[in-house]
Amino acid sequence: MPKLAYLGPEGTFTEEALRVLAPDAERLPSSNVTAALEAVRRGDADGAVVPLENSLEGAITTTLDELAWGEPLIVTAELLLPVDFSLLARPGTEVGHIKRVFTHPAAITQCRNFIARELPDAVVVAAPSTAAAAQEVSLPGSPYDAAIAARIAGEHYGLVELATGIGDRADTVTRFVRVSPPGPLPAPTGADRTSLVVFLTDDHPGALLEMLTEFSVRGVNLTRIESRPTGDGIGRYFFHFDLEGHVADARVGEAISGLHRICADVRFLGSYPRADGLAPQAKRGTTDVDFAEAAGWLTRIRTGRV
Amino acid sequence: MPKLAYLGPEGTFTEEALRVLAPDAERLPSSNVTAALEAVRRGDADGAVVPLENSLEGAITTTLDELAWGEPLIVTAELLLPVDFSLLARPGTEVGHIKRVFTHPAAITQCRNFIARELPDAVVVAAPSTAAAAQEVSLPGSPYDAAIAARIAGEHYGLVELATGIGDRADTVTRFVRVSPPGPLPAPTGADRTSLVVFLTDDHPGALLEMLTEFSVRGVNLTRIESRPTGDGIGRYFFHFDLEGHVADARVGEAISGLHRICADVRFLGSYPRADGLAPQAKRGTTDVDFAEAAGWLTRIRTGRV
Amino acid sequence: MPKLAYLGPEGTFTEEALRVLAPDAERLPSSNVTAALEAVRRGDADGAVVPLENSLEGAITTTLDELAWGEPLIVTAELLLPVDFSLLARPGTEVGHIKRVFTHPAAITQCRNFIARELPDAVVVAAPSTAAAAQEVSLPGSPYDAAIAARIAGEHYGLVELATGIGDRADTVTRFVRVSPPGPLPAPTGADRTSLVVFLTDDHPGALLEMLTEFSVRGVNLTRIESRPTGDGIGRYFFHFDLEGHVADARVGEAISGLHRICADVRFLGSYPRADGLAPQAKRGTTDVDFAEAAGWLTRIRTGRV
Amino acid sequence: MPKLAYLGPEGTFTEEALRVLAPDAERLPSSNVTAALEAVRRGDADGAVVPLENSLEGAITTTLDELAWGEPLIVTAELLLPVDFSLLARPGTEVGHIKRVFTHPAAITQCRNFIARELPDAVVVAAPSTAAAAQEVSLPGSPYDAAIAARIAGEHYGLVELATGIGDRADTVTRFVRVSPPGPLPAPTGADRTSLVVFLTDDHPGALLEMLTEFSVRGVNLTRIESRPTGDGIGRYFFHFDLEGHVADARVGEAISGLHRICADVRFLGSYPRADGLAPQAKRGTTDVDFAEAAGWLTRIRTGRV
Repeated sequence: MPKLAYLGPEGTFTEEALRVLAPDAERLPSSNVTAALEAVRRGDADGAVVPLENSLEGAITTTLDELAWGEPLIVTAELLLPVDFSLLARPGTEVGHIKRVFTHPAAITQCRNFIARELPDAVVVAAPSTAAAAQEVSLPGSPYDAAIAARIAGEHYGLVELATGIGDRADTVTRFVRVSPPGPLPAPTGADRTSLVVFLTDDHPGALLEMLTEFSVRGVNLTRIESRPTGDGIGRYFFHFDLEGHVADARVGEAISGLHRICADVRFLGSYPRADGLAPQAKRGTTDVDFAEAAGWLTRIRTGRV
Repeated sequence: MPKLAYLGPEGTFTEEALRVLAPDAERLPSSNVTAALEAVRRGDADGAVVPLENSLEGAITTTLDELAWGEPLIVTAELLLPVDFSLLARPGTEVGHIKRVFTHPAAITQCRNFIARELPDAVVVAAPSTAAAAQEVSLPGSPYDAAIAARIAGEHYGLVELATGIGDRADTVTRFVRVSPPGPLPAPTGADRTSLVVFLTDDHPGALLEMLTEFSVRGVNLTRIESRPTGDGIGRYFFHFDLEGHVADARVGEAISGLHRICADVRFLGSYPRADGLAPQAKRGTTDVDFAEAAGWLTRIRTGRV
Repeated sequence: MPKLAYLGPEGTFTEEALRVLAPDAERLPSSNVTAALEAVRRGDADGAVVPLENSLEGAITTTLDELAWGEPLIVTAELLLPVDFSLLARPGTEVGHIKRVFTHPAAITQCRNFIARELPDAVVVAAPSTAAAAQEVSLPGSPYDAAIAARIAGEHYGLVELATGIGDRADTVTRFVRVSPPGPLPAPTGADRTSLVVFLTDDHPGALLEMLTEFSVRGVNLTRIESRPTGDGIGRYFFHFDLEGHVADARVGEAISGLHRICADVRFLGSYPRADGLAPQAKRGTTDVDFAEAAGWLTRIRTGRV
Repeated sequence: MPKLAYLGPEGTFTEEALRVLAPDAERLPSSNVTAALEAVRRGDADGAVVPLENSLEGAITTTLDELAWGEPLIVTAELLLPVDFSLLARPGTEVGHIKRVFTHPAAITQCRNFIARELPDAVVVAAPSTAAAAQEVSLPGSPYDAAIAARIAGEHYGLVELATGIGDRADTVTRFVRVSPPGPLPAPTGADRTSLVVFLTDDHPGALLEMLTEFSVRGVNLTRIESRPTGDGIGRYFFHFDLEGHVADARVGEAISGLHRICADVRFLGSYPRADGLAPQAKRGTTDVDFAEAAGWLTRIRTGRV
């Protein structure tokens, strides 16, 4: 039974994701993404489940940065989880009496309309996670009257649900990934995704265009690009890429080898089945069969058998 | 005397930025970026100063999203401000007794080493801003023992500085922008920056490459690219671009007209002097003189004077 | 009644083309392409009809070079003319007795199979034009027994047709152009072609890619590209381009202005209706309406009306 | 002693080239380029020397087409030969009495100024080669009074040199290639050239740009591009490319494999030392060492050793 660290405490959306990705795993709640990934790096956990991006909030930058720096880890699975928020309070609390609300900043943004309409006078304070907010609210003497969090968090911490489905959009989704120590990759399924971190050799104009051309010329489609600061001053960035296909695919392998050649550093973050199961349309001449045929042809012409 | 909203309360780095950008302005502290920009949109303020990105933390996504949606506003100035953090507490507090620290999540990340070394057992709680953390700590009965914030915040709220320069990196910089209602742009200086928000027509593979080509073919260099979710599901993004030059420059005008033609929407966020004063190297054939000469030539050949 | 020079003598395919392009014109036969175009430059003719390329033989390089150098001229019309060859001889000649055949080298190539099959032992000598060959054969005492030329040439010079349709391919076509002195261009028809000559600034790697990108980024399709030596040594070339659209089209105008800016020289050779009447499919965002809309948008944002 | 066919008869510039390229070879004059290459294909010769392009006249299209169609052959060497023309006649002829001149059309073009100045009234007739012209003039009863050809041709055929160095440009150069049956390639020298013929899958707009991108993305520079008609109608072309480097170079191999994948057909015409000895500047990340390192990296990451 694998032991998986996750962004805790119990009751987070991440715990929900973990239960779907690895129902039988032992769960090791961590206080933040950094701690969850460090547990894997130290060998205290066999893997971790962490959020990577949210359809409303965007990238979870802590996850991006933790994967880019420090000891390498690889992504071995992903999950798209609809997220919805509930207003949770200690039993006996009435909505009209709520003065202070505790929740994660992402939830503040995503429940903006509900808060403006139902809690116009409440002070809303930022918490490190929605589950931590629920936990804090559950404590006797908490300065907060209510938390905005997943329903599961209310169940964990004995809170009652005063309102449910309070997010501004009903279709908000968070993408979670399972992160593992380096080791054998999930086998290609025909509908895979590959994640990379890329550091430029120098910030010359056109470097990004060059990188994208390495992909496009081999018919590899990007599904996500994020820039992150290197820490070396405004204007210095590195990039996270998600792309269609598996590193075992010839076109993906050649494309990221090309990146590796022209960039200061490329960190491979894994190839894994896409949660949405979408198989890419291979552009003409970019299937594994095409690459194998071309390799055979090249071998022949190099020996003058034209 | 213009009235400028800013990310308050008093004592934030943003206030510091505002004092540099507009020393004589009346200052209107707002509880968050959204509120500051809404004050401009409603006409309650003549402008606002908000953070846009940090060399360690990356983009301030709230600012990016606020500028992308809602009534249009334009950026009219930028400032790069070194940011440094101090550990602030009520008079009489000793470092050894600090159990609960309140600060903005960005500060938690940026002071990670100091916290691990000097406050290994303290609980660190996320605050909406560093100045809000200082304000909270200054209140009698606050559950927090210390705040991590700008020194200026300590002065505002009567806290003492227990440690200074506690950021992991001494060279951290935040980029602030002055935002104004639509209106005349700052005149070109020869060292300008232009900001844009771009929404794709559809997420076809290669759309990003096409956008970058619109810039590169006219010799316009990008200095920043950020992707943000449109809110319509994982895998749907829009883009923030910063580029070298002023929209009054011929090459910039033609490039962003090109973007406008091929994209679903391009929101112009302003052209303004670069804080670093760096003038771009115009690629061969891309100066205003080159464009004017080519326009004259085109007029001639269209009438058969070859 | 305009006077048009053409590649003579009477009986050439070019004369045939001229009769189609300008049935009422006075015809001025010239001994070669150079002479025909010089007649226009000197004002001895109002225009000229010359061959530009053949579907089997390729470019008529003399025409390409004559249009690239010297006083500028413009193309004002084009014609695609099926070409077919006949074996022509003086009355009384029998095929079996033909020992020496005179014709243009292009005809030698295009009738290769017929010659090998029917005239295996004949010596085939290169003539300056097919019609000149017919003329020579018609002279008493000519060393040649037969000519390969257009049927019309046989009629002109009193030769009989010993065989007809002797080209290897039945579908061979020659493209002829009408060349005029600089002056008003033919109006856009929606199915036009534009011809250019482009000289690179320097032969840096990637210069050709840069040129093609100027076209592709504005959605302008090339229909022909020819490289020609500049005369300054092996490895130094200039280019002939044919492209879809009229210089009056916004996308074409911007594309060739872009070329003009980055190249040492661009010579405009005219915009004229396509002989095949094919209208281009405008790529998204590249119609005149799109350009006009973008220009209006640019004007607005430049004055801060966003 | 190898037997090499060449564009004869004796006295052509091609013979001169052959003598430089293979001083000890047995020489087999052929009546034209086609015949010379057919001799190799049939095994009647061990190779052939033919002209490929001239710095003034451009491509020798017969050579291009012969190499593109029929049984494959490969180029194994190249030579740049300065070409100069002489006016040759039977002993006793005076310049003032020359009425009919016989020479190859390329020579007519290249000696245009001399002809206009010194032989303004002469009729100039096209010959299949300059040497054939000299041979014809040497025959008793020839209708021609003089030939324009290489001095060597005059020596062969007993003509006297009435004028020498009569080309308009003193620096005209012809590039000749040695063509061999398929077999082992010349070893890489560090300053090599590779020649290709490329047929597009279809004539979609942007196909040429795609091809050039396959080269540029691997840092492979083109030194020549020629379009030739496929014979299937105006507007249908295939391409000849010369590029820097040897097919044994990793970047060249990957680039032309890429072409092979996306094109209908790529015919490899050989890799051979450049006559000018120029070694290419490898772009960052494109040396064989870079490719080998990247291949090792790819192998590692594919097995999860990141």
